[in-house]
Amino acid sequence: MAIVSLTRVVHFSASHRLHVRALSGAKNRALFGKCNNPAGHGHNYTAEVTVTGEVDAATGMVFNLDMLKKILNDTVLKRLDHRNLNVEVTAFRKLNPTAENIAIEIHRMVQKHLPKTLKLEVKLFETPNNSVVYRGEIK
Amino acid sequence: MAIVSLTRVVHFSASHRLHVRALSGAKNRALFGKCNNPAGHGHNYTAEVTVTGEVDAATGMVFNLDMLKKILNDTVLKRLDHRNLNVEVTAFRKLNPTAENIAIEIHRMVQKHLPKTLKLEVKLFETPNNSVVYRGEIK
Amino acid sequence: MAIVSLTRVVHFSASHRLHVRALSGAKNRALFGKCNNPAGHGHNYTAEVTVTGEVDAATGMVFNLDMLKKILNDTVLKRLDHRNLNVEVTAFRKLNPTAENIAIEIHRMVQKHLPKTLKLEVKLFETPNNSVVYRGEIK
Amino acid sequence: MAIVSLTRVVHFSASHRLHVRALSGAKNRALFGKCNNPAGHGHNYTAEVTVTGEVDAATGMVFNLDMLKKILNDTVLKRLDHRNLNVEVTAFRKLNPTAENIAIEIHRMVQKHLPKTLKLEVKLFETPNNSVVYRGEIK
Amino acid sequence: MAIVSLTRVVHFSASHRLHVRALSGAKNRALFGKCNNPAGHGHNYTAEVTVTGEVDAATGMVFNLDMLKKILNDTVLKRLDHRNLNVEVTAFRKLNPTAENIAIEIHRMVQKHLPKTLKLEVKLFETPNNSVVYRGEIK
Amino acid sequence: MAIVSLTRVVHFSASHRLHVRALSGAKNRALFGKCNNPAGHGHNYTAEVTVTGEVDAATGMVFNLDMLKKILNDTVLKRLDHRNLNVEVTAFRKLNPTAENIAIEIHRMVQKHLPKTLKLEVKLFETPNNSVVYRGEIK
Repeated sequence: MAIVSLTRVVHFSASHRLHVRALSGAKNRALFGKCNNPAGHGHNYTAEVTVTGEVDAATGMVFNLDMLKKILNDTVLKRLDHRNLNVEVTAFRKLNPTAENIAIEIHRMVQKHLPKTLKLEVKLFETPNNSVVYRGEIK
Repeated sequence: MAIVSLTRVVHFSASHRLHVRALSGAKNRALFGKCNNPAGHGHNYTAEVTVTGEVDAATGMVFNLDMLKKILNDTVLKRLDHRNLNVEVTAFRKLNPTAENIAIEIHRMVQKHLPKTLKLEVKLFETPNNSVVYRGEIK
Repeated sequence: MAIVSLTRVVHFSASHRLHVRALSGAKNRALFGKCNNPAGHGHNYTAEVTVTGEVDAATGMVFNLDMLKKILNDTVLKRLDHRNLNVEVTAFRKLNPTAENIAIEIHRMVQKHLPKTLKLEVKLFETPNNSVVYRGEIK
Repeated sequence: MAIVSLTRVVHFSASHRLHVRALSGAKNRALFGKCNNPAGHGHNYTAEVTVTGEVDAATGMVFNLDMLKKILNDTVLKRLDHRNLNVEVTAFRKLNPTAENIAIEIHRMVQKHLPKTLKLEVKLFETPNNSVVYRGEIK
Repeated sequence: MAIVSLTRVVHFSASHRLHVRALSGAKNRALFGKCNNPAGHGHNYTAEVTVTGEVDAATGMVFNLDMLKKILNDTVLKRLDHRNLNVEVTAFRKLNPTAENIAIEIHRMVQKHLPKTLKLEVKLFETPNNSVVYRGEIK
Repeated sequence: MAIVSLTRVVHFSASHRLHVRALSGAKNRALFGKCNNPAGHGHNYTAEVTVTGEVDAATGMVFNLDMLKKILNDTVLKRLDHRNLNVEVTAFRKLNPTAENIAIEIHRMVQKHLPKTLKLEVKLFETPNNSVVYRGEIK
């Protein structure tokens, strides 16, 4: 069977502040610049979620697109859309909500709902010019 | 002389909350839905700022593009980028930061720096699917 | 009060065939080329629906965005999305489903749901390179 | 020599219906939802075709871009553009025209025209939010 | 009959240098900055050409799209694409090739081929962030 | 630690001419077509620069985004933006400035400024429809 990757894109709007509690204010400002602004700021995030696996001979699909939409609705949209990430998302109470960490958190949430046979990749755009990809790799 | 419109696009990231103090919590939630979320959310805003006037015969320009960039830098970017609009922008301490009101505020700020002979129009995208235009018209 | 235009964008996927019954096959092929292909073809249409009016002093909005979304859902999406326009849409049983006529039909459907005080404009993209605008003007 | 990937993007408009003959009507509706609509619907498809190989030291190119354009014209555009995929494309008389299967078919058509030394990848967008990639991998 | 605007988008790649012979080198550098670089630079220009008029009751079209494509091919693409505007385009031997002047030149070329009953508008993007519109207005 | 890729996008406008001195005029025209036009032409190039490595546990970042912006400013923007590539960029005095070779040159310039632990990839768009990727692979 052919191995194909299927990507579904979802958009969410959220606010955040880059800040690491263990570091001083000066160090935080040096590391994160205007993104460390105490009152926060926000983005229209775009998540491109890709699953890779064998195409089912009967249906011609890698994974049912409506099921993928439902999973993304129940995870990414329900928990992150129109939220203040630092305040309202458990994962970011302690963890710095960088694009890297948000992509890793989306990967963790979506992975739970997928068959083990599918490989998962998450690309997250913070702006059209800044993005990250997490493929589940750990070193 | 030919009349031409010149548009410069700038991007800024900000957080906001739609909320009208004079109205009850229930009324605010009914009017603004998830945009009324108390902890706020955010957007990558795009402002398309258009000036219309005669093309200068000597230079071939309606208005100097570098001057327009500088004006937008000193107004839109300096005051709105990486800000919490409700908390950090004077105009929105009392006024609800809807896309409509943000466009009107940008129009007000930019207008001050332009020659009176130029007509000004501001298009503001809150997301790629939601936008407003203010042309300085009052009824 | 300030006069502002508010635009909401919706996407729909549909198939169509450009064909005028009153004309010969040869004339239809000459007029519409590959778009006259008897088996039809399709597009991802994008409709940008714009309402213009006074900004409400209390809410800071021209028109409630959630209401506009609901109107577009009940008209554009419900009647045109994932449809064969020639076969399944009453307006195009006789009328040629050109971009021009689709924009006029969307304008007719949406207008019914709007307050008389708002001016309505519909921009319809058949592809990113081909689009039309109907502003309700009749000569 | 450096190994570089070269991508050329082409657009085509087509109609299709997701339907598997071997399955019942109820099962087809459950699997494909509105995409199973009997009268069909359509899309502006975008195919990103990528060839990877060594950069030629004399020309500075991986593969001649005009030749790649000609290959895509003679395959993707000539056979799929402004077509009803289920009715007019031989491959989809029996095979369900899912994005996965269309990408595999484009890969098959283009591969025939390429030197064996080039690796081929096809990314197909059905809409800006739904896409697939086929890299010629079989399990 | 309904009045509708029809837009066709074309892309061309060209090089240019902003420079006014009647002015000193210092004045040119002050006015045009890096765009005055003597060796030139270039852009992927996008021209959105819009014609406005009555929808033909028989065909459902404002103007035949294939005819509009042919006009743009014979004017914009043939004369400006893959050209050095200052050196190879007669209009810019003396005239500064600003976005404003290029839009006016495209308007002049296209207007000649159109019926007098159609209103013509040309929007020209030099980059996604810089654009101009010329509607044929003269003061 | 998680392995994540971070991408920053930069835009530059430049002119070039595809031409290989060692080949005849006829051969150059056959190979490069309109891109061999002696007076040159130009593009709005987009470079997507991706670094891949471990996410720092303290900061939540693969690499500091402000540092990456500074590197791209000092290399890509300073040396290529608003330039005639053939005339003003040392690397292309002899080397043909194809998209492939420009991507390799950007990779070479950026690599010098990065920690050895990061993997570097450069995607370069000459137009939205033509792009190349160089990942530092040599055969």
